[in-house]
Amino acid sequence: MEGKEIFLQLIDLLRQGKIAEFKALSLECPPVDIAEGIDELDAQLTLRVFRLLPKDISADVFSYLSSDQQQVIAETASGLEMRHIIDDMFLDDTVDFLEEMPANLVTKVLQNASAQTRSLINQFLNYPENSAGSLMTIEYVSLHEYYTVRKAMDHIRRTGVEKETVYTCYVVDAQRKLLGTVSLRKLIVAPESATIRDIMESASVFAYTQEDQEKVAEDFRHYDLMSLPVCDQEMRLVGIITVDDIVDVIQEENTEDFEKMAAITPSDEEYLKSSVWTLAKHRVPWLLLLMISATFTGAIITHFEAILSAMVVLTSFIPMLMDTAGHAGAQTTTLIIRGMALGELDPSYLPQVLWKELRVALMCGCLLATVNFARLILVSHQTLLLSATVSLSILCTVVIAKMVGCLLPMAAKKIKLDPAVMAAPMITTIVDACALMIYFFLAIMFLGL
Amino acid sequence: MEGKEIFLQLIDLLRQGKIAEFKALSLECPPVDIAEGIDELDAQLTLRVFRLLPKDISADVFSYLSSDQQQVIAETASGLEMRHIIDDMFLDDTVDFLEEMPANLVTKVLQNASAQTRSLINQFLNYPENSAGSLMTIEYVSLHEYYTVRKAMDHIRRTGVEKETVYTCYVVDAQRKLLGTVSLRKLIVAPESATIRDIMESASVFAYTQEDQEKVAEDFRHYDLMSLPVCDQEMRLVGIITVDDIVDVIQEENTEDFEKMAAITPSDEEYLKSSVWTLAKHRVPWLLLLMISATFTGAIITHFEAILSAMVVLTSFIPMLMDTAGHAGAQTTTLIIRGMALGELDPSYLPQVLWKELRVALMCGCLLATVNFARLILVSHQTLLLSATVSLSILCTVVIAKMVGCLLPMAAKKIKLDPAVMAAPMITTIVDACALMIYFFLAIMFLGL
Repeated sequence: MEGKEIFLQLIDLLRQGKIAEFKALSLECPPVDIAEGIDELDAQLTLRVFRLLPKDISADVFSYLSSDQQQVIAETASGLEMRHIIDDMFLDDTVDFLEEMPANLVTKVLQNASAQTRSLINQFLNYPENSAGSLMTIEYVSLHEYYTVRKAMDHIRRTGVEKETVYTCYVVDAQRKLLGTVSLRKLIVAPESATIRDIMESASVFAYTQEDQEKVAEDFRHYDLMSLPVCDQEMRLVGIITVDDIVDVIQEENTEDFEKMAAITPSDEEYLKSSVWTLAKHRVPWLLLLMISATFTGAIITHFEAILSAMVVLTSFIPMLMDTAGHAGAQTTTLIIRGMALGELDPSYLPQVLWKELRVALMCGCLLATVNFARLILVSHQTLLLSATVSLSILCTVVIAKMVGCLLPMAAKKIKLDPAVMAAPMITTIVDACALMIYFFLAIMFLGL
Repeated sequence: MEGKEIFLQLIDLLRQGKIAEFKALSLECPPVDIAEGIDELDAQLTLRVFRLLPKDISADVFSYLSSDQQQVIAETASGLEMRHIIDDMFLDDTVDFLEEMPANLVTKVLQNASAQTRSLINQFLNYPENSAGSLMTIEYVSLHEYYTVRKAMDHIRRTGVEKETVYTCYVVDAQRKLLGTVSLRKLIVAPESATIRDIMESASVFAYTQEDQEKVAEDFRHYDLMSLPVCDQEMRLVGIITVDDIVDVIQEENTEDFEKMAAITPSDEEYLKSSVWTLAKHRVPWLLLLMISATFTGAIITHFEAILSAMVVLTSFIPMLMDTAGHAGAQTTTLIIRGMALGELDPSYLPQVLWKELRVALMCGCLLATVNFARLILVSHQTLLLSATVSLSILCTVVIAKMVGCLLPMAAKKIKLDPAVMAAPMITTIVDACALMIYFFLAIMFLGL
């Protein structure tokens, strides 16, 4: 990684006291790499490096820092220094920063912000977490439909430096209602005397402030967007969301789904930065719940204890049946949950999916049963009846596991529960119980126990 | 979804024979929604709708169609029609389309392309799947460093319409070596007489054609990029990758990881479009492998059969121990695999992670053991010794499961195997076996069996 190497050179220059060289080289290093470098430093060196950064990039670096390091800097910065940083940061980054800070620091920052910025920050802090409102920035270019292309270009040249993007401009009326969008690409090829009204496109895709970020990310993906306007209930434009923030949202949402499906309460924190206590807190409730629900499976065994006493060898097939059930169920559940997360599936497809999974289950189950039957007869030299019982149990188990594997997440979605939370961790316990019941039932039938 | 409704209106207009209205309205509908609508139609209606689309959008719609529908159209289109579509599509979309087509159609398309396009397509078809080369497009704006801003803007106005993005322009020398980038934002505020050399930035972030798309996506996320230049080994610029394609890559890579971790061979196809045979083929090898490896766990039970015969109640705790082991292991493995996929963790952190997980495991394990002990004594009225044996087994199981849960994926990564494939499906089998061995060992010690 080239950025990392430049940062190491920067620290070397600092150690040698070559401040001018430090400043010059820091402009060559991507701000995100400077921020990642600073994240590894102790508090004293952090402050020293940060203070020496040229003003042009310090706000940018600040917005990429971890909240621990942001706090170190914010605590020692003077009111004026803090104001410079806040003024140069985009509003969405300021809000992200303040959300993680203790109350006294938030007060300090707000005291030093201008009245207008303060009221904007307060408004942003009120949007629900993970909503479009919490993601958006207000640094966009707005145009009026009566502007000529020449006037629009002048406007962009004058105000564009502070905007998060100038490549899509938003056309609003006097009440700030969103009328349409016009791309900079279109502006530069249009005749200078044309009016915005003539060249703008309708803004058919937009988000409301309260909309969930998952839905917003889906729109970006579906329509290949670079930015998306955000409106309030009266269709007034209040901000825009840019694709760079969406890339992060997509990864966050995916991480959440991975965690939920592995029976972990999701967390925004990176693994290495999470305390042992936090990690344990996010895992133990699920382990506890699943442990207790597994006693139900144990109760099935207790119920059929007499059968196991009569034929102890039956016990040795329990792990294989439980594991196969769990894996077969997890395969289906994962595909269904993922399909729903990507918008390719929804509960209305249930009959279709059940029919498909039934056939897949029969194919997989028959092959597994056959291999298992051959192994029991030829390798383990078990009796024909016992081998048939175990193999038939496998077939039935795979079928049941795959049926439950599609029913569970789709039912959860239907009643508006999160399929990743409700279905994935529970599937093992449920199909384990099913597998054992089938096994004992078949053993009673075939082996006359 | 507004786009879907417009499409339904389009079909209505077609049924009523209102062709002019159809054409006018189709320009209002996002091409991706037209394509998704067409995907639901039969072959005859597909052809009819597609032929009536205005020329400006038909190539765009075509690039969003599923490959089945692309084939329907390509098979009946005349050579000239096909040439129009190919000429209007971006090269990366053409290559995606051709990769899915049967050989005779590829020949037909190539025959009708111009010699230059044909040679480009052939070059692109040779990049390995999932490499930067296979993702890139050649429709970018290149500038020379001696251009003035005025000349550069003229160049963009003249050629920009056919480019995938004009917002970042690439500065190359006479040998097409990449010298730097300049944003359109910078161009429009710069004085017209300035030269590109004065305002360009160095292109410190770029990809080589052979680089894996996962690495490319990581760069986009890390540096908040909108586009990335792609160079060959001699640093000659051969193409660019834009962020809209990366959003799809990120979702694909995540879907792959979900599938691998659920013991499914990854596939690019959507669930509903996959045949039963394909679905079974992607699942059965894993089920077979895991079923056979679970017989190892069964063998442990067979080995300790005498103990189970002597005290049948021990059997009823096996599901709880196995499930708890599996869940505790899966929690850790998932977090480690995800951390490595996001670049937050790598095998060099192993000691740190092991120490963290050990403490987490002790906290979780102690709580689970305590709850279980209380339940066995108070609810199930088991003996003190039996309750202690089971509870201690749970504690040890959780600790072992979490240790194996970090060792396995990190070891896989270290020896350059895919952690998602190697660790996630195998973890259950491995920790199940560990759990049973601990259980029997403690039973022998405490219960004198």
